[in-house]
Amino acid sequence: MASSSSLSPPKVPKELYFINREKVLNSLRQHLTETSRPLHGFVLLQGGEEQTRYCTDHLELFRQESYFAYLFGVIEPGFYGAIDIATGKSILFAPRLPPDYAVWLGKIKPLSYFQEKYMVNMVYYTDEIVGVLQGHYKEPGKPLLFLLHGLNTDSNNFSKPAQFEGMEKFETELNTLHPILSECRVFKSDHELALIQFANDISSEAHVEVMKKTRVGMKEYQMESMFLHHTYMYGGCRHCSYTCICATGENSAVLHYGHAAAPNDRTFEDGDMALLDMGAEYQFYGSDITCSFPVNGKFTSDQSLIYNAVLKAHNAVINAMKPGVCWVDMHKLAEKIILESLKKGGVMVGNVDEMMAARLGAVFMPHGLGHFLGIDTHDPGGYPKGTERSKEPGLKSLRTVRELQERMVITVEPGCYFIDALLVPAMENESTSKFFNHEVIGRFKDFGGVRIESDVLVTANGSKNMTSVPREISDIEAIMAGAPWPSNKTAPSNS
Amino acid sequence: MASSSSLSPPKVPKELYFINREKVLNSLRQHLTETSRPLHGFVLLQGGEEQTRYCTDHLELFRQESYFAYLFGVIEPGFYGAIDIATGKSILFAPRLPPDYAVWLGKIKPLSYFQEKYMVNMVYYTDEIVGVLQGHYKEPGKPLLFLLHGLNTDSNNFSKPAQFEGMEKFETELNTLHPILSECRVFKSDHELALIQFANDISSEAHVEVMKKTRVGMKEYQMESMFLHHTYMYGGCRHCSYTCICATGENSAVLHYGHAAAPNDRTFEDGDMALLDMGAEYQFYGSDITCSFPVNGKFTSDQSLIYNAVLKAHNAVINAMKPGVCWVDMHKLAEKIILESLKKGGVMVGNVDEMMAARLGAVFMPHGLGHFLGIDTHDPGGYPKGTERSKEPGLKSLRTVRELQERMVITVEPGCYFIDALLVPAMENESTSKFFNHEVIGRFKDFGGVRIESDVLVTANGSKNMTSVPREISDIEAIMAGAPWPSNKTAPSNS
Repeated sequence: MASSSSLSPPKVPKELYFINREKVLNSLRQHLTETSRPLHGFVLLQGGEEQTRYCTDHLELFRQESYFAYLFGVIEPGFYGAIDIATGKSILFAPRLPPDYAVWLGKIKPLSYFQEKYMVNMVYYTDEIVGVLQGHYKEPGKPLLFLLHGLNTDSNNFSKPAQFEGMEKFETELNTLHPILSECRVFKSDHELALIQFANDISSEAHVEVMKKTRVGMKEYQMESMFLHHTYMYGGCRHCSYTCICATGENSAVLHYGHAAAPNDRTFEDGDMALLDMGAEYQFYGSDITCSFPVNGKFTSDQSLIYNAVLKAHNAVINAMKPGVCWVDMHKLAEKIILESLKKGGVMVGNVDEMMAARLGAVFMPHGLGHFLGIDTHDPGGYPKGTERSKEPGLKSLRTVRELQERMVITVEPGCYFIDALLVPAMENESTSKFFNHEVIGRFKDFGGVRIESDVLVTANGSKNMTSVPREISDIEAIMAGAPWPSNKTAPSNS
Repeated sequence: MASSSSLSPPKVPKELYFINREKVLNSLRQHLTETSRPLHGFVLLQGGEEQTRYCTDHLELFRQESYFAYLFGVIEPGFYGAIDIATGKSILFAPRLPPDYAVWLGKIKPLSYFQEKYMVNMVYYTDEIVGVLQGHYKEPGKPLLFLLHGLNTDSNNFSKPAQFEGMEKFETELNTLHPILSECRVFKSDHELALIQFANDISSEAHVEVMKKTRVGMKEYQMESMFLHHTYMYGGCRHCSYTCICATGENSAVLHYGHAAAPNDRTFEDGDMALLDMGAEYQFYGSDITCSFPVNGKFTSDQSLIYNAVLKAHNAVINAMKPGVCWVDMHKLAEKIILESLKKGGVMVGNVDEMMAARLGAVFMPHGLGHFLGIDTHDPGGYPKGTERSKEPGLKSLRTVRELQERMVITVEPGCYFIDALLVPAMENESTSKFFNHEVIGRFKDFGGVRIESDVLVTANGSKNMTSVPREISDIEAIMAGAPWPSNKTAPSNS
């Protein structure tokens, strides 16, 4: 094997999901107490189902729904899960499989297998839900079910509450569970952090592998292929956190390049920058990392200018992060540093505070500075009740506006892009035209963009960067020329 | 790079989809003429839409719906496509993208881009469908739309007819198009065959790579990772035809192992057989290849017995294939050869014709011998009107019962498995118990199974095996010991 790894996939502690359930149960009980409601009923979630492609029997690889994964960790499709609020007991409901499942899909596992595997108190079949929940309910009247229903503020879609035959025999409550469960997911336990750390470690290593093997004349998708292979082969990561963005040249100014209509298929050329946004998922928990570098291994002065502007913003934010700091301020800090660097480099002209007031930061960085990361790449909880999304350019793309708190994991991903659709109007606009050095900007017409993204944990006194890839230009150039990594220097951290 | 490839991804000729459309148009016109119906109206198909995962904004990698891909080759989501039956002209309808698409997802392409790329006569926006189709209809009354609606006989799902706002302004017809379009897909053009051949070439090469690198102590998913990497890195195959089945030891008796609930995660051991069913998709066209071999590189006598039984069946079927031959007879031929070999090896006892009559072939090979292959792994057209699915074990799993015809591509995938859920009842059954050598079968308790699968084209006088992997035990052992492949021998073909 040409490439190998210093890592091997860790075991997932069974307690992880048990601890998640306890946290949600305690939080829900506390909320019910505070709102003078009785402590009974069930949390009930429905797991995901396998999907076929259009009318065919082509099965998409199943990936569990994230809230269900958070509470139960079940990898199999077709389950339901409940928590008895009165007793705290957890119940899984497994699908009753037909006998020929054993021929086509594998041995039919006894219920005890799932009980042991997922550390729940009881397991029944899904066709027993009604009777089991009724049997465990000790109050008069219809048993009360707390179902999951609420807005995902990244997709604007609503989660789908559990459904099953016989639901009319229950009272259902749709408003309580979603905010509580989402809020629990915002703060990561040690077990969760260990998985996010592994996803970061194997993805960081894979990024370095790709950097080492990048050669002028390759295709963008070959970088994707190398990344996917490294994280699966050595990290056991079957899923990616998101479709890889492997953009070179002007494609690197397309923020979500890499999808079906823009499929990482360009042959890159000497002089191109590459922007690689790729992160593996390990046992449901994700990573989200971006590296930017010249494909020929050597930064030009223009490339250094933009790269260092973004790196300075990235490092400044990580150094400023600690509990109590507002994320909107971090976004503005990044914008300001980038604009200052652009001014210093002769790209922009004039007063940086005035540029900020004119929202020119959003011309170069139209996306938000970062987002919560966990079982979803865009983990929920960014806009709890009482917070509001800005309408201003750049700020409106922020996936959270919260104050940082300990145990949040959030991406720090400043970027600087030359996007015609944004630059041209701003340069033609009467009131903002003066800030641009039109001649210098002409040099950057096909530059694309730079993004630098790390996954950062908020600690008691500061932050910890969970991503470990070369960031300094000298390090990147050395590695691409064959030097080993990690070097002797340590990764930045202010915790 | 440690491994490389002798192959590179071919260009897709634009004529491919033009030829597909012409074929369907001619076939539809002929059918309308034969049924004394007028030659006007439109074929109208709706392409696929991007899907998000549950309530999140996690985008699944888009793959076009197969019928739409067949007629138009469009890789982008959100399209409609029409063929004017009167004039033969083709029209694509592209989604009108919002301005900020340019920032997040890429440059907004002009309509002329799609016209040129997909070699259609006209392109409009999807919000113009009603007016455009009305404008091109020269008859009195509401324009007639032939929509796609029909049963997929593998999934038992129905294809979803196109829907759009303003449909009430059209007459719609649901019964004519599906069988005609499905039948066209059964017979592959030269351009289609070239893509299926490339998918086979790169997948064959990847299978050999995996064989070479397999070592005792690895994980099953590492074989999957190596395969995916080789086909993407060197073949540009972003999609697989289906989720890889990488089964070792007793898992190889699970026909569709490898899914989320049985995720290729076993560490394999000295003495295990591996059954690797993996095929890449190239530009919509698939491959479907299975290799079976001992993970330590050396067949035992029991492994040789079962492997050679299956190989003999595989070769005999390919040699017997030609136009006019019935696929059910091929299935039975494979069963018979396997049972004869099992008898010769002392596993079975008695008269093979009696075993056949008792359907014991289906105990060892419970799946069908093979299926059409094309844009779908289980390509449609297996059960056209007038054919019927058998109710007998094994035969009921056949995905087609047709007579072979030139230009069909069909998989030949005999297998022999030791599946408790089937063996135990057959061995305990009064009338079939006598055929089993219970003592010898005991040796095969944890054996798993062997499958050998190639993709075969029916030619004018015989068949051509499009798959090129080592099949003889001596070749497999040599390659796993480090010998080069291809060797000097040529692949079997009877064309």
